[in-house]
Amino acid sequence: MVRTYREAGIDVEEAARAVERIARAAAATATPAVLGTIGGFGGLFRFDPATHPDPILVSSTDGVGTKLKVAVALGRHDTIGVDLVNACVNDIVVTGAIPLFFLDYLAIGDLRADIVEEIVGGVAAGCAAAGIPLIGGETAQMPDVYRDADYDLAGFIVGVVSRDDLIDGSRARPGDAVIGLPSSGLHTNGYSLARRVLREDSWRSRMPEGDRTVGDALLEPHRSYLDEIRMLRVALRGAGSDLAALAHITGGGWEGNVPRTLPVGLGVEIETGSWPVPGIFSLIQSSGDIADDEMMRTFNVGIGMTAVVSAEHADAAIASVGDAYRIGQVVPVPEGEPRVRFV
Amino acid sequence: MVRTYREAGIDVEEAARAVERIARAAAATATPAVLGTIGGFGGLFRFDPATHPDPILVSSTDGVGTKLKVAVALGRHDTIGVDLVNACVNDIVVTGAIPLFFLDYLAIGDLRADIVEEIVGGVAAGCAAAGIPLIGGETAQMPDVYRDADYDLAGFIVGVVSRDDLIDGSRARPGDAVIGLPSSGLHTNGYSLARRVLREDSWRSRMPEGDRTVGDALLEPHRSYLDEIRMLRVALRGAGSDLAALAHITGGGWEGNVPRTLPVGLGVEIETGSWPVPGIFSLIQSSGDIADDEMMRTFNVGIGMTAVVSAEHADAAIASVGDAYRIGQVVPVPEGEPRVRFV
Repeated sequence: MVRTYREAGIDVEEAARAVERIARAAAATATPAVLGTIGGFGGLFRFDPATHPDPILVSSTDGVGTKLKVAVALGRHDTIGVDLVNACVNDIVVTGAIPLFFLDYLAIGDLRADIVEEIVGGVAAGCAAAGIPLIGGETAQMPDVYRDADYDLAGFIVGVVSRDDLIDGSRARPGDAVIGLPSSGLHTNGYSLARRVLREDSWRSRMPEGDRTVGDALLEPHRSYLDEIRMLRVALRGAGSDLAALAHITGGGWEGNVPRTLPVGLGVEIETGSWPVPGIFSLIQSSGDIADDEMMRTFNVGIGMTAVVSAEHADAAIASVGDAYRIGQVVPVPEGEPRVRFV
Repeated sequence: MVRTYREAGIDVEEAARAVERIARAAAATATPAVLGTIGGFGGLFRFDPATHPDPILVSSTDGVGTKLKVAVALGRHDTIGVDLVNACVNDIVVTGAIPLFFLDYLAIGDLRADIVEEIVGGVAAGCAAAGIPLIGGETAQMPDVYRDADYDLAGFIVGVVSRDDLIDGSRARPGDAVIGLPSSGLHTNGYSLARRVLREDSWRSRMPEGDRTVGDALLEPHRSYLDEIRMLRVALRGAGSDLAALAHITGGGWEGNVPRTLPVGLGVEIETGSWPVPGIFSLIQSSGDIADDEMMRTFNVGIGMTAVVSAEHADAAIASVGDAYRIGQVVPVPEGEPRVRFV
């Protein structure tokens, strides 16, 4: 007969150990804006309006999809938190916002403090790299929802942008250049397809390039474009221009993400072959015999962020970040036509 | 052979239908502070520093635990979102903060737009009741993590409190009164134990009181104490006093939540029997033959929020909210002794 919470599958002591380690990881990310939490119910962040006149708080939540299944299968949990933070960071920097703080939600079947520590350690590392505190979180033991070592991880970010600095696509014009910032791999999208095509038994084999395993390539963390966008903006503003639009190439691929950052009536023409495609995409496509358009609908295929800039400033903008490509241009698109065309 | 995202279990069209319905539900919660989202990557909330001098942003994330399993088993998904919002609201109002906006993360095995609409409709209803916009969210299809109709739901809230209005326990003194605000049931805690004791086949049977089914009692939404705390504070400040400490009785029960809102060296003495205990707790305890202390460690047992106020203002404070009980007092506690004692 089950008479205690512990017998019902909830290990309160192991949870306390996990919470201690989480607290240590989070404390390492603290900034002067973080106030001691009160009873740990909420994270406290002192906001200085003087540094952000007319502030708009920009927030986003994201998960890492079934990339989790790769981490669980390979028993490597220390990078999935980096994925989580960077996926969220990229979602808000497209508006011109700078990140302020982060929270994570971790739900797990069989709670083990060492695995929780690895996971949240990755979240803390991602936060530290972005210069923001991990200000709160929740760790839920849900033995009947998650099988054994399975878990889910969601992140939540808040940033700020002054109203005058908002990037909203309204400056985009036909003829503007589209700049692509390279992705590090699949980032956090398309894993349900990738895992069907590249079966688990192949994850320990070498990539065709021979440099690392398929599993390593699949687990490569989502890149953050925080620094690149800052550099692009400084360069463009220095030249009297600015970023016109930014798109994070995430769930929904190119068609699902680029158009929604541009005014109605505008789309992009993208030159296939104008950027290097990481080997993992070629391997997925050839292994699964996947059509080109399905690839572009499901994956980022080598570009994790697109930036629209005036054509005359494109070269200087690219030079400011170094690792970037001129991959296309903004074009007028009649209603009902596809707004992303690959040529 | 799997060659498309759809064949891999990801239904992009059904997801689009779900997103449309989510957008409609979220739009109904918009306030003038919400700016049109840019490409939907991030939610934009215009923050007015003039109304919150020296602002502290207070944020929290929470889930609803395995209360989800009850919702799934009974096929009722329209209240779990209310639970989610109120669990988060209560986590930040204990600092004196007022909520600003909310985001939700929904991960689901088999995505069906009608179920997503029910779930997110509940989130939107909770937001509307709290007067805040549902400003963003993520809906993830994860067919290999969640079994069939199973899902998980996490919420993120941001609120604000001026530094002078922060409730941080520092005003608490021995002899202060503890006021209890009644819970509506289990709220969102202890379901892993409750579901072991009250098996699924009993959920359609009547409660001993006969007024409703066991399933209805288990699914009763988490109460929000936003209004009650506002009323308490107005009454106390009007009398030249203030709230000294607030505790949300959530995961970890009484011992896990009340002490962490009080200064070291202080605890509470609680008079068992000084408030009415909802029938669902008695049913769980008697069905499972659960010890009293295990009940108080796992469940809220009828009190969802405790407030510490000076003894002389306790009666006026209780009168200001009506439905509240004087349930104990603040006492000095030597180091190492339990900080919650039931007498």
